Amino acid sequence: MDRIPILKFGDCLLITIQVDMHDQLALTLQEDLTAQIAKHASRGVLIDISSLEIVDSFIGRMLANIAAMSRILDAQTVLTGMQPAVAITLVELGMSLPGIKTALNVERGMDLLQEFIYREPESEDLHGSEG
Amino acid sequence: MDRIPILKFGDCLLITIQVDMHDQLALTLQEDLTAQIAKHASRGVLIDISSLEIVDSFIGRMLANIAAMSRILDAQTVLTGMQPAVAITLVELGMSLPGIKTALNVERGMDLLQEFIYREPESEDLHGSEG
Repeated sequence: MDRIPILKFGDCLLITIQVDMHDQLALTLQEDLTAQIAKHASRGVLIDISSLEIVDSFIGRMLANIAAMSRILDAQTVLTGMQPAVAITLVELGMSLPGIKTALNVERGMDLLQEFIYREPESEDLHGSEG
Repeated sequence: MDRIPILKFGDCLLITIQVDMHDQLALTLQEDLTAQIAKHASRGVLIDISSLEIVDSFIGRMLANIAAMSRILDAQTVLTGMQPAVAITLVELGMSLPGIKTALNVERGMDLLQEFIYREPESEDLHGSEG
């Protein structure tokens, strides 16, 4: 197993992480994912980590990186299936996963993504627009 | 990693097989899957094997077993993402995967499942009904 499969679901891409990540696998995943986002013009990325019992700082950083890369490619990232113990560990490690939305399971995660993708563009007040 | 995650998508369950299967993992998967089908009253099971480069007779038998179990629990099984080399090997091994429908990718597999789940029940001519 030298790469994690990326499944296309309409506008979204789905990744289920089942194995221990190591450097090369994480790099390959980032390359594959960014290539797939560009290829399919995907708007959302859903990452399921329900089978991970341990999320260390390496995986936490990798997830944050993936979310940041996806964001600048105009795709929203949602993390699903986090086990309670993992949430405790992440907070204790001081990792609040900025930029990553979370959902309890894949169904709710997909709903969340659809909401982001198809919501009306808001008339955002840009900071400093009045300055 | 001691179990393969099963993701629920509406009426269907999604499994992506990414690791080499061994006896215990296959047994656990069968138990988990049948439990999930019963719990959610699922009508379809989608198994993605796009990251498997080798499918031997053990995995072939396991897939056939899963399909048979799902069928008697009233769920249809679709296998997706098979690599061309795997198809060649399976046929050479004499395994035609009876009872398993296949689709090229997850999206087409989901379409196929939806078609099966929501099609009108046909008025089937039962064998021997005239005997």
